[in-house]
Amino acid sequence: MTPQPVMTSEEVTALLRDVFPQAFGGEEAMTVASVAAGEATVLLKAGDTHLRPGGTVSGPTLFTLFDLAAYVLVLSHVGPEALAVTTNATLNFLVKPRPGPLRCVCRLLKLGRRLVVCDAQVLDEEDRVVAQASLTYSVPPRPDRPKSASTVS
Amino acid sequence: MTPQPVMTSEEVTALLRDVFPQAFGGEEAMTVASVAAGEATVLLKAGDTHLRPGGTVSGPTLFTLFDLAAYVLVLSHVGPEALAVTTNATLNFLVKPRPGPLRCVCRLLKLGRRLVVCDAQVLDEEDRVVAQASLTYSVPPRPDRPKSASTVS
Amino acid sequence: MTPQPVMTSEEVTALLRDVFPQAFGGEEAMTVASVAAGEATVLLKAGDTHLRPGGTVSGPTLFTLFDLAAYVLVLSHVGPEALAVTTNATLNFLVKPRPGPLRCVCRLLKLGRRLVVCDAQVLDEEDRVVAQASLTYSVPPRPDRPKSASTVS
Amino acid sequence: MTPQPVMTSEEVTALLRDVFPQAFGGEEAMTVASVAAGEATVLLKAGDTHLRPGGTVSGPTLFTLFDLAAYVLVLSHVGPEALAVTTNATLNFLVKPRPGPLRCVCRLLKLGRRLVVCDAQVLDEEDRVVAQASLTYSVPPRPDRPKSASTVS
Repeated sequence: MTPQPVMTSEEVTALLRDVFPQAFGGEEAMTVASVAAGEATVLLKAGDTHLRPGGTVSGPTLFTLFDLAAYVLVLSHVGPEALAVTTNATLNFLVKPRPGPLRCVCRLLKLGRRLVVCDAQVLDEEDRVVAQASLTYSVPPRPDRPKSASTVS
Repeated sequence: MTPQPVMTSEEVTALLRDVFPQAFGGEEAMTVASVAAGEATVLLKAGDTHLRPGGTVSGPTLFTLFDLAAYVLVLSHVGPEALAVTTNATLNFLVKPRPGPLRCVCRLLKLGRRLVVCDAQVLDEEDRVVAQASLTYSVPPRPDRPKSASTVS
Repeated sequence: MTPQPVMTSEEVTALLRDVFPQAFGGEEAMTVASVAAGEATVLLKAGDTHLRPGGTVSGPTLFTLFDLAAYVLVLSHVGPEALAVTTNATLNFLVKPRPGPLRCVCRLLKLGRRLVVCDAQVLDEEDRVVAQASLTYSVPPRPDRPKSASTVS
Repeated sequence: MTPQPVMTSEEVTALLRDVFPQAFGGEEAMTVASVAAGEATVLLKAGDTHLRPGGTVSGPTLFTLFDLAAYVLVLSHVGPEALAVTTNATLNFLVKPRPGPLRCVCRLLKLGRRLVVCDAQVLDEEDRVVAQASLTYSVPPRPDRPKSASTVS
């Protein structure tokens, strides 16, 4: 059974603006596009500060985009009190992304009592996958998240 | 554009039986279920030798399943002459899988001239994702695989 | 402060032979060489069943070696009651290892209350690093492992 | 045999200032401390823009530090003409780092003809490892880097 979000994209955005405004990058380069069951999407308008030599979007910029999308996904499905901490992140850079809008789609693989694992892709305007990542977050244990049956298919 | 396979599942199976029979595990525990555009599926019938204490399928067994599925995907899309070598593998173990049939679905993220990257999931009979992996293979450079436009969305 | 082991290599070997004999591979291909503060070393005598086409040691064999070394490290430092479960493993395959003795040296990066993270290398007889891995294990929470000051430098 | 650098830390710094000044972070938060055989060290003075809620250094900041250290290592050992591209990065976040100086030590695991793999740690002032990463870079093939004997022990 796919977990349902407990916060909307507007609520997550308001919370992050309040406690962690840097998360959106300089000049609010990133915005939360949507939150749905087991999924979150974040947009990036890459500007000059996000580029590396050759005019492609830099690795740190892509990491920041993955991390925000995953953080939005975790917050929206676990709740605002969550002090989620990234424990592991693996990124595969597939194509050098040119400047222009990018979107990161992040999906829950596991919503466990202590660990949340998600899989994410960054796509360009032509729907090419330019990077893929898996990220793991540690969250405070909560009795209402059962140990079993917590994985999303 | 999704790359098309150049070998069928029967051809890949015959080739592997010929040059690398150990790849299927003891007593042919694994079988190639299908090969399609940008995708390959391998089945595992987990027996006693594949279990760890507690009766769950072991990590090395899951790695072997991921590696075979990815190898089948690479071979079937690059061709039989490919001396593909795994360069990187990242695995997330999500749920302890009980004995019973498992299937690994592996999809191309990038079919580059030198590197092939794929994303894979192992699912149980109830379609739960029990493990996820990304794997990278180094293949001999070939002029007919263009450097750009090689990624699958 | 480097954590001290609570079990010797002989005790870990006896425990694994008892509850998980498959961990040593067919025909006891692997042996626990040593356990020290924050470190464990496991040896592999690679035989024909461990090779892939071209006569090099296969990826699944290397994964099995990494996983055993890390499991020995976790058990020896957390104690025999630990139901440690691999949650994440990332492997980099650097050089195709020819048949012959290999050793895996695994070191604690973090011994936390709930997660244990270790870094490992597989070396050949000439001390070349043929593969590197990082592995994360989930262990049952215990009050005597403090949340802070648990990392090894 | 450990590969020797072909550029000094001053030469790498001058090159990066010229072609990629953003690599050093806002207000030159990062500096190249040293380049040695098979190794590079980069320092970070974390300021307010590098923190996340709770006052710890953010994940994107740590990624940026790892990526710069690895890029310095690759450039200094492959040469200034290298168009090195990150293909894979795996990060383990071990301890939440408080504000204050951090250093990233990055070591070559493999200097191949086409792929460079390195292992890196971020340490705080008390020499605790706060994060570990492995990173892979694709470099243009060069005939003078032999296919074998390219790994560092």
